[in-house]
Amino acid sequence: MRQSQLFTKTRKEAPADEAAKNAQLLIRAGYIAKEMAGVYSYLPLGLRVVEKIKQIVREEMNAIAGQELIMTALQRKELWESTGRWDDEVVDVWFKSSLKAGGEVGFGWSHEEPIGEMMKGYISSYKDLPISVYQFQTKLRNEMRAKSGVMRGREFVMKDMYSFCADEESHLTYYESTKPAYMKVFERLGIGDDTFVTFAAGGAFTKFSHEFQTICEAGEDITYINKEKGIAINEEVLNDETLESLGITREELTETKTAEVGNIFNFGQQKAEDLGLMVKNKDGESIPVWMGSYGIGITRLVGVLVEKFADEKGIVWPEAVAPFKVHLVGLNSDDAEVKDFTDGIYLSLKEKGVEVLYDDRDLRAGEKFADSDLIGLPYRIVVSRKTKEEGKFEVVTRASGEVRLLTEEELYNDFDNDSNT
Amino acid sequence: MRQSQLFTKTRKEAPADEAAKNAQLLIRAGYIAKEMAGVYSYLPLGLRVVEKIKQIVREEMNAIAGQELIMTALQRKELWESTGRWDDEVVDVWFKSSLKAGGEVGFGWSHEEPIGEMMKGYISSYKDLPISVYQFQTKLRNEMRAKSGVMRGREFVMKDMYSFCADEESHLTYYESTKPAYMKVFERLGIGDDTFVTFAAGGAFTKFSHEFQTICEAGEDITYINKEKGIAINEEVLNDETLESLGITREELTETKTAEVGNIFNFGQQKAEDLGLMVKNKDGESIPVWMGSYGIGITRLVGVLVEKFADEKGIVWPEAVAPFKVHLVGLNSDDAEVKDFTDGIYLSLKEKGVEVLYDDRDLRAGEKFADSDLIGLPYRIVVSRKTKEEGKFEVVTRASGEVRLLTEEELYNDFDNDSNT
Repeated sequence: MRQSQLFTKTRKEAPADEAAKNAQLLIRAGYIAKEMAGVYSYLPLGLRVVEKIKQIVREEMNAIAGQELIMTALQRKELWESTGRWDDEVVDVWFKSSLKAGGEVGFGWSHEEPIGEMMKGYISSYKDLPISVYQFQTKLRNEMRAKSGVMRGREFVMKDMYSFCADEESHLTYYESTKPAYMKVFERLGIGDDTFVTFAAGGAFTKFSHEFQTICEAGEDITYINKEKGIAINEEVLNDETLESLGITREELTETKTAEVGNIFNFGQQKAEDLGLMVKNKDGESIPVWMGSYGIGITRLVGVLVEKFADEKGIVWPEAVAPFKVHLVGLNSDDAEVKDFTDGIYLSLKEKGVEVLYDDRDLRAGEKFADSDLIGLPYRIVVSRKTKEEGKFEVVTRASGEVRLLTEEELYNDFDNDSNT
Repeated sequence: MRQSQLFTKTRKEAPADEAAKNAQLLIRAGYIAKEMAGVYSYLPLGLRVVEKIKQIVREEMNAIAGQELIMTALQRKELWESTGRWDDEVVDVWFKSSLKAGGEVGFGWSHEEPIGEMMKGYISSYKDLPISVYQFQTKLRNEMRAKSGVMRGREFVMKDMYSFCADEESHLTYYESTKPAYMKVFERLGIGDDTFVTFAAGGAFTKFSHEFQTICEAGEDITYINKEKGIAINEEVLNDETLESLGITREELTETKTAEVGNIFNFGQQKAEDLGLMVKNKDGESIPVWMGSYGIGITRLVGVLVEKFADEKGIVWPEAVAPFKVHLVGLNSDDAEVKDFTDGIYLSLKEKGVEVLYDDRDLRAGEKFADSDLIGLPYRIVVSRKTKEEGKFEVVTRASGEVRLLTEEELYNDFDNDSNT
């Protein structure tokens, strides 16, 4: 894409009321716009990042037999009353409104109830199971505070998945299979080494749930981690009983600030019992379904990636989610021959399927480089009069700062073999 | 995809409270689930249809320089007050709620205001224009009645695009360019011949707006159409003045039931004046931006396509939006050799990039055929013991009922050369 066509522009300053580094940088670079505290629009560059994260998650959820669907924002009061979760005393993040046609509606802060209810129409026997379904849903939560930028919003995108099994064994097998699937997502996003399956508070059915906590200074959680042993414990369950059951001592753990990027929850049969979601088992008995729920915070991940990888010059995207792989920066564009030459490189890269943002604007080199650093694409290719004359392209890796000089042929070889435009 | 893995099942009956044919068929075939009146979830098959429609619209909007973004559901009261559209007396479809942190919020039933407001951060000079941005947004509208299935929902997906120009000429040029772009969308969806650019009520700035009305018995609009002359007039502006200005008489027009699948609206400078969205023109004067808005009802189109093409046996999808191109129906699956043979055909078709739903379930042929008709994929390929023995595959075109007998080689040739899996 030609940067001259992109309507967003970089800014020197973030809004004064924006405290979070992730939102400051994302706003300044033109990825997001702030609608109100905790509510952000995703502009063309930002939407590309979100869609890439979603696609990685989608592939890994499909790989464990997840079926994608999309539920609704509007929620029936009666349904949530049936499980005792309509009351603001029980759930304190509801947005509610009245229907012109009469009655009240809520706005989806979670979708366990409607998905369980919907499933009643499709499952009646153990033969219909196991099933796993997921969605990328815009969740609406009436949070009292929203100061963490896109890491905790009043409106945000979440992947939520739900599994339905007919017996404990297949249920636990599925539950366990989501852990490596989740870790694969985080590895592909470049945060695998810093993300830990973390013991956290369970529910009526299980002692623990499992969170996926990523080491992150801006995170809102405190996790106690032993990297070598791969053990991580949320502070809420850090007690003698937990330590003993995991065979580790308090001294072996390091207190670490982390961000929760995912969580998985084993409901056992409790949730289905609340919902009345029953199936006939092999003996013809009616039993509540075994359920699990599995979340990944899609837009929160955008914030975590910015917080973790940004440097003093701006954002540094992992290659897998960058809106474009290459930032082609054209200099000396007042010289028509240099401009034509640079246009040609742009078209050749595009033809080879490389995702390129082409800075074809009529600006000083310093401004272009500053913008490029702020926007944070993985590779910058600089084309100038000198490039044209000497046939050497300067390629800078944003993360490491490494500078290489490549011939045109080397350039194409280097950036060939990827696509996704 | 193997149908045995798909969690949805077909149903003989639609919910008793569902009056609309489109929703009845979509529910019975497992495309959607009803959450409440006018609020539907999209299940795996339905989501695939929606995504295909979105992709067609996306391609045509990108072709006229549209840049995709995504705004938010939550809306600031103060912003809509500034344009006089917060009041329920003025806009009667608001859902509103209170913020725990204090104050009121609305839920986006339209996004003209926030997009115009957001643009203030990016445009200041005529040099920044023209710009066109669009989104696929879930709109929330507190409709008093919702009886038309997915054709008029309280929650629905809309593509809304907004253009911003610095002078009248470029504004009108862009406005006009959206008409062929829209018609291209409807042609690709298979409703081009039955969709008409229709004169409808304008606003403060223009005499007319333009709707895209599709002939459809279930439509809520009445349009007066002359097919040969390609003239269509919404009943709301059918008067002597309109007839005269279009050079047509009332007698030449046929009263027709239609569904509005899109509309385009020329705001002139009025909307920007309301919003205070100003740019400096070439003479250095501050002027309100010329704006247009351009909608396409994505989920409404799902309903229109069902209403228009369904027959007494079920849904008939146009090939461009069908969730799968081929319904591979395996018979005699109790015979392991036949089953293996059919599995092989499935894998071969998939390998060639054909989108296949494979009915591998252990059901009677009659049930499979009835399900296949109801689901409505463009081509059914039947594989049975006889197929295996005689090497001839029965291929039925859903829309026409045409039956062909093809060899395996002919089959692959016929279905080769398409992808999108």
